[in-house]
Amino acid sequence: MKLWGGRFAKPTAPELEALGKSIEFDKRLGFEDIRVNRAYVHELNRVGIVDEEELALILKGLDSVEDRLRSEPDLDDEDIHTAVERLLGEVVEHHVCGKLPTGRSRNDLTATDLRLYLASAIDKCVSLLHGLQKSLLAKAMEHVDVIMPGYTHLRRGQPVVFAQYLLAYFWALDRDRERLGETKVRTLGLALGCGALAGNPFGVDRRRLAEDLGFSHVLPNSIDGVSSRDYLIEFLSIGAIVGVDLSRMAEDLILWSGTEFGFIEIDESYSTGSSLMPQKRNPDSLELVRGKSGRLSGNLVSLLTTVKALPTGYQRDLQEDKEAVFDTIDTLMLTIPAMEGVVNTFEVSRERMAAALSPDLLATDLAEYLVGKGLPFRKAHTIAGKVFATAEKRQIAPADFTLEELRTFSPEFDNSATEVWNYAASLERRDVEGGVSRRAVAEQIAKAKERL
Amino acid sequence: MKLWGGRFAKPTAPELEALGKSIEFDKRLGFEDIRVNRAYVHELNRVGIVDEEELALILKGLDSVEDRLRSEPDLDDEDIHTAVERLLGEVVEHHVCGKLPTGRSRNDLTATDLRLYLASAIDKCVSLLHGLQKSLLAKAMEHVDVIMPGYTHLRRGQPVVFAQYLLAYFWALDRDRERLGETKVRTLGLALGCGALAGNPFGVDRRRLAEDLGFSHVLPNSIDGVSSRDYLIEFLSIGAIVGVDLSRMAEDLILWSGTEFGFIEIDESYSTGSSLMPQKRNPDSLELVRGKSGRLSGNLVSLLTTVKALPTGYQRDLQEDKEAVFDTIDTLMLTIPAMEGVVNTFEVSRERMAAALSPDLLATDLAEYLVGKGLPFRKAHTIAGKVFATAEKRQIAPADFTLEELRTFSPEFDNSATEVWNYAASLERRDVEGGVSRRAVAEQIAKAKERL
Amino acid sequence: MKLWGGRFAKPTAPELEALGKSIEFDKRLGFEDIRVNRAYVHELNRVGIVDEEELALILKGLDSVEDRLRSEPDLDDEDIHTAVERLLGEVVEHHVCGKLPTGRSRNDLTATDLRLYLASAIDKCVSLLHGLQKSLLAKAMEHVDVIMPGYTHLRRGQPVVFAQYLLAYFWALDRDRERLGETKVRTLGLALGCGALAGNPFGVDRRRLAEDLGFSHVLPNSIDGVSSRDYLIEFLSIGAIVGVDLSRMAEDLILWSGTEFGFIEIDESYSTGSSLMPQKRNPDSLELVRGKSGRLSGNLVSLLTTVKALPTGYQRDLQEDKEAVFDTIDTLMLTIPAMEGVVNTFEVSRERMAAALSPDLLATDLAEYLVGKGLPFRKAHTIAGKVFATAEKRQIAPADFTLEELRTFSPEFDNSATEVWNYAASLERRDVEGGVSRRAVAEQIAKAKERL
Amino acid sequence: MKLWGGRFAKPTAPELEALGKSIEFDKRLGFEDIRVNRAYVHELNRVGIVDEEELALILKGLDSVEDRLRSEPDLDDEDIHTAVERLLGEVVEHHVCGKLPTGRSRNDLTATDLRLYLASAIDKCVSLLHGLQKSLLAKAMEHVDVIMPGYTHLRRGQPVVFAQYLLAYFWALDRDRERLGETKVRTLGLALGCGALAGNPFGVDRRRLAEDLGFSHVLPNSIDGVSSRDYLIEFLSIGAIVGVDLSRMAEDLILWSGTEFGFIEIDESYSTGSSLMPQKRNPDSLELVRGKSGRLSGNLVSLLTTVKALPTGYQRDLQEDKEAVFDTIDTLMLTIPAMEGVVNTFEVSRERMAAALSPDLLATDLAEYLVGKGLPFRKAHTIAGKVFATAEKRQIAPADFTLEELRTFSPEFDNSATEVWNYAASLERRDVEGGVSRRAVAEQIAKAKERL
Repeated sequence: MKLWGGRFAKPTAPELEALGKSIEFDKRLGFEDIRVNRAYVHELNRVGIVDEEELALILKGLDSVEDRLRSEPDLDDEDIHTAVERLLGEVVEHHVCGKLPTGRSRNDLTATDLRLYLASAIDKCVSLLHGLQKSLLAKAMEHVDVIMPGYTHLRRGQPVVFAQYLLAYFWALDRDRERLGETKVRTLGLALGCGALAGNPFGVDRRRLAEDLGFSHVLPNSIDGVSSRDYLIEFLSIGAIVGVDLSRMAEDLILWSGTEFGFIEIDESYSTGSSLMPQKRNPDSLELVRGKSGRLSGNLVSLLTTVKALPTGYQRDLQEDKEAVFDTIDTLMLTIPAMEGVVNTFEVSRERMAAALSPDLLATDLAEYLVGKGLPFRKAHTIAGKVFATAEKRQIAPADFTLEELRTFSPEFDNSATEVWNYAASLERRDVEGGVSRRAVAEQIAKAKERL
Repeated sequence: MKLWGGRFAKPTAPELEALGKSIEFDKRLGFEDIRVNRAYVHELNRVGIVDEEELALILKGLDSVEDRLRSEPDLDDEDIHTAVERLLGEVVEHHVCGKLPTGRSRNDLTATDLRLYLASAIDKCVSLLHGLQKSLLAKAMEHVDVIMPGYTHLRRGQPVVFAQYLLAYFWALDRDRERLGETKVRTLGLALGCGALAGNPFGVDRRRLAEDLGFSHVLPNSIDGVSSRDYLIEFLSIGAIVGVDLSRMAEDLILWSGTEFGFIEIDESYSTGSSLMPQKRNPDSLELVRGKSGRLSGNLVSLLTTVKALPTGYQRDLQEDKEAVFDTIDTLMLTIPAMEGVVNTFEVSRERMAAALSPDLLATDLAEYLVGKGLPFRKAHTIAGKVFATAEKRQIAPADFTLEELRTFSPEFDNSATEVWNYAASLERRDVEGGVSRRAVAEQIAKAKERL
Repeated sequence: MKLWGGRFAKPTAPELEALGKSIEFDKRLGFEDIRVNRAYVHELNRVGIVDEEELALILKGLDSVEDRLRSEPDLDDEDIHTAVERLLGEVVEHHVCGKLPTGRSRNDLTATDLRLYLASAIDKCVSLLHGLQKSLLAKAMEHVDVIMPGYTHLRRGQPVVFAQYLLAYFWALDRDRERLGETKVRTLGLALGCGALAGNPFGVDRRRLAEDLGFSHVLPNSIDGVSSRDYLIEFLSIGAIVGVDLSRMAEDLILWSGTEFGFIEIDESYSTGSSLMPQKRNPDSLELVRGKSGRLSGNLVSLLTTVKALPTGYQRDLQEDKEAVFDTIDTLMLTIPAMEGVVNTFEVSRERMAAALSPDLLATDLAEYLVGKGLPFRKAHTIAGKVFATAEKRQIAPADFTLEELRTFSPEFDNSATEVWNYAASLERRDVEGGVSRRAVAEQIAKAKERL
Repeated sequence: MKLWGGRFAKPTAPELEALGKSIEFDKRLGFEDIRVNRAYVHELNRVGIVDEEELALILKGLDSVEDRLRSEPDLDDEDIHTAVERLLGEVVEHHVCGKLPTGRSRNDLTATDLRLYLASAIDKCVSLLHGLQKSLLAKAMEHVDVIMPGYTHLRRGQPVVFAQYLLAYFWALDRDRERLGETKVRTLGLALGCGALAGNPFGVDRRRLAEDLGFSHVLPNSIDGVSSRDYLIEFLSIGAIVGVDLSRMAEDLILWSGTEFGFIEIDESYSTGSSLMPQKRNPDSLELVRGKSGRLSGNLVSLLTTVKALPTGYQRDLQEDKEAVFDTIDTLMLTIPAMEGVVNTFEVSRERMAAALSPDLLATDLAEYLVGKGLPFRKAHTIAGKVFATAEKRQIAPADFTLEELRTFSPEFDNSATEVWNYAASLERRDVEGGVSRRAVAEQIAKAKERL
């Protein structure tokens, strides 16, 4: 069955059938399609196209089609809209069910289905992110006092608490959650009633349809309603940002859980072995999360490229919108929970973190000590640099310099210099909003709680 | 001059100098850098690092550096922050100006400068989009009654008014403007006070700094503050969406202004000739707008790829964030005004639009006529398809069928069938919200005005 | 069954199972996996790990697994390699079949399977391109004398023959075919024998394996052998180039087959109708080909992003290589034949092409006429430009200028000026290699034939 | 001055001037433009458009323009071709120099210039890659006997020699060099003589032009000659592959040079400090190389997107081809030499590499030992896994198990089991082509030398 055969004399070429078939992926819009059909037939009834009896028949038929989709999900139609119409035709007489598509086009129908589907997928993503944030926050609260080296350029920089890293992830994901919320609003614009491009001629009330279907607003222009895909690109770009955010987190955790760092241990249940090397316990979960950032960026590029320079109005190219969107949804549904599982189960090695605290982490504190003695920072920085370079050359710890030796670098050094060599004190000095002092971290945690 | 020489014995390799130099592009952050320095030195004064006299000297020095940047913009330092410190050192004694960077890192400084710069660039983009929307709306209001073929698949579909296309562009850009506004909020998070990664140890008040500098909030985590670039990727993705939106509009206008369509004429001032073919008048402005969507997508991919799998914390890779962002800003600054110019100046050929109205645009109306006679739409669609296919085969217009002939397709046809062949009436029937009836378009225009 | 369970006490988390499972897509490597296993077990026999009897049992078992894969393609293992080992274990005793993976890792196995699969897919793509080129050439040979406007900037430029466009496509695809051939050579490097990363310790002869399996060379470094994916990125980039080439061809054909141009007619069998608008006959085949260029670019970006900054050696991220590659293969398998079908079946309207020949196409000839009279081209160009602008303003054809009038533009005009207004003569003048004269096109066709 | 003003009455809008100007980037084609002009004027002389005297004047004029470009590189024309024509007009009378563009268009000129420029840039890239490969090979030859852990999943896998990693990089770059060579052949197709789209009408000999200019072949179709950009996309994709290859190498070296691994030390001259943290010595060179892989992928996407769905023939969108290509060239010119410098100067810590050899690297050898005793590998793997898991649980080294204890895992263990615990012997066993035995590495080095 085709929805458009009347004017055609020849059958479709098998090459075009193969190229154009979308049922394999758009079948997941089946329940949305039925939901939209229900709302639409009610509206057709209100405007007098469908009478009460026909309405009842069609609604009952849609129930039956819904059951059928549930029990026999394999379909071989051109697309899901055709499938639903065909299946309805198997249970409702044609002179009745043939009224359902009145005034409607696949152009506005498919846009409506997809927007509904996406809005609900966004809700799920938001909820998954919420879950991961909760796990991060819980883990952070357990580790507010675990001091470890903070890194820049993958080189030890200054001491921080482990919680500070976990909270850094928290905030990045919080912004992603915020973005998804904003996109959802734009997603929930009703396309139904736009027809093929010029609007519905049977006086359906689009506001009522919007309300029935849970849309927040009516798309204000019929051509834009069937033609625009910017909300999908926007969703895909947020997907790509989430992917990148998770890839960075994964990179950290992969590094930290290796023998060389040894800061954390990924749980066995989130690790995999090797078919050749019996000793292996690989952080596959994290690698997969990191690797899948590729497809999230790729999906975005797919749709950006497809839509680029398309004439306004529906073009068949737009059929390509769905797979990218579905794949991004599926990928987020896999990666976020896996990351949550990793976070919930990894073990922290306070010993290895403590063992990694090395005096170079306090070089900045040494410079700041000199600032406290009145030196301008730029000069203090140079002196501290020389102290550390000299210690390195002599292969001693900078704390091993006698006061006398220190004073050859700067006369400002006095007995209090030994106080510099204290990691906890270094943290406490960074007591600004967002800093690593106990107070600042506690304040940050309070803020984080408010976001959940 | 380097800001980090103390511990180094060897000079930088020329290959690294060449690879790492950023002054050529980050110099455009010069004025932001000075602005941030001003706010910061006030704060250093409040916390007692800098006394009143030093404050005055540094502020005066910064004024002088600002003048210098204005008059001699060519710089050869490692980066703009180094340049500003060097220039300040030329007018303020080192034991004074050397205090300015106290407790601060280039990591938080550069993030702060760039966020300020971007927020202001976003404002400019928003204003340019606003301008283009205004032009589109004005043009639409001039052409609310100009009927033309509406296209899907680049084939004539149903009659619409020209205003409907112009308003379709309006709404797409309106969403882009909305997106930019949301990104701006996320952009205006203060990074200053995050230091290199662990926060500022001198008790600066980040809320006060945020207020002084016009930030809407303080980034709540020092590691996140120096490490995150998601707001830039978000901006680049909106840039790519704007690019795609403009590319579609450009594609339409290029097609419509060609000889074959002839619906509009691009003004000579937005056209270019050929060095070989003397007759040529090419729509270069539109082609460039369309072509530049490529770099907007490319910039997005650049940063997504750079940031992917970077460890958390500042890595030098992040220096790559700026050129992509600057190029997207510059591109938007070029393309949006050019598009506005094209819209303001093109001529509409009502004659060519009218001449392109062909009866096939009314096939849907024919089917709807039969719906009015009680046929289910699906059947009516098949009949109308046959009517048009037969007319095509006989090379006649479908309006030329006698009633008798029409009734061979369906007995429902009666004398009123001739009323179908009226383009204006077709439009008036599509009177839903967002449709093409006069009333609906007027309502839409009213909504559009509210958005400006 | 897992291939790596020995050292693990805990079961894999369901989140990781879901995230990591690859059987749904890597099952298509099943036959390659068996082929590689066959070659490998022979080699194990030669080096004495497997005796004659065991060899026979395993080979027989692999036959049976092959049958099983054919008859029951649905599998639920972790990956295809695990599936094949499991299935073999169902028909061959463990103390025999357990010898098969000796000295081998999934790392070198999966790379070998995929390289074999891709090499064969490349052959198919090459053959499909060859078919499309043949169709283009045949169509060109039918239309060597059909004059039409040649376009630049989508504006009429100079007259050309239709064959010249078709041959332009031919040559672009010819380069793509050449690229695929070069990639195939790089694809056919043997990874087997690289083990997990350090090479095989049982003395297998990799050259013999290469020969058995049809590889052209042995990858010379065991780490590179399991780690490199550049050949896949290269394939994906050629896929993207093919996609872009086809998208341009599709764009031309979509434009030309619309009412406004009317140069060709896409066959009904490659067209689709509308569910709403009964008259529609849309060029869906071409739109889908054009639209699918998006996913081809997206797949490339996916893998580029995934591989970026991965440490050398196998990382689980690399599992992400397959879906992008398979999707590009599948897409090419769909789009190239569809395009060939379109080319084979579209009708050319010589009338519409002839009707589109307008005098502005000869403006260059007018300038060249003046060059013939001794004027420098730059001046001749200006004069011709004025002639056409004046004609346009007066709304006459430039051929309607009297000689007298023409001489007001330049005294060089004489009676022979009327000879300019001849489209066929214009073509014949462009008689260089690659030009549009009959001779040049014939020569080009001869060259094209040689390429097939 | 404009090359196309004749038919225009209005000046170009400033918005279009700004949008369309390409001189800032295409000026680097100046010398190629002059070279092409020289070859072309010779050909014009041969076909009688330009006489001997005019030829001499134009050639002399071009010499002078070349000097001028060298001494005053700042230009403010529309593009470089306009600039060269304008400058020539300043030294050669118009009725002479006005003949130079006869029969030629900017369409074929710009393609010819860019192809020449790119071919020469490819040569430079090839030579830089050759240099880096030489450095890698030299470094490998110095470290053929330095045993270190080989990694998969960033976890210790099996022992390898450091040379094996360096050679893995060598071969990846060798393929990149091969790809560039193949692209160069496709780049060197002559576009000159294609005119705007229909070919040259003055009988110029394109083969002679190709020979004069060093092209390997003549592009066989005039429309394809001015329209195709696939060779540029191909170059950009190779640039992206090089970028990814370098990013992986950079990632390894960044990890290995950190405190936690400590395998190598990046030379100070390729390191940078911190403006805040005095102790810092960051591997900025490697981070920048890694980060710049982003723009290389971005440039590829830019052009792919721009070209997608462009009608065949020159469109102004194609002006966007140059910046992406130039940026990729520039990036490769910066990153490859920096990487070579890093490789030439880093120090290897044999001690840290030796210290990182841990018994888990020999788990595979333990399984292989059992294979030697007749166990099937799959069983041996499970037993070895249990041995290591048990050792881990008891916190002992597996070598500390008594023979008696070992025999509880498998009765196949005998006194020879202690021989497993020898890293060097493990390497020697992997003696296949491409393996890590001394012989295999020496053989590989010999092959590598042949490639240089």
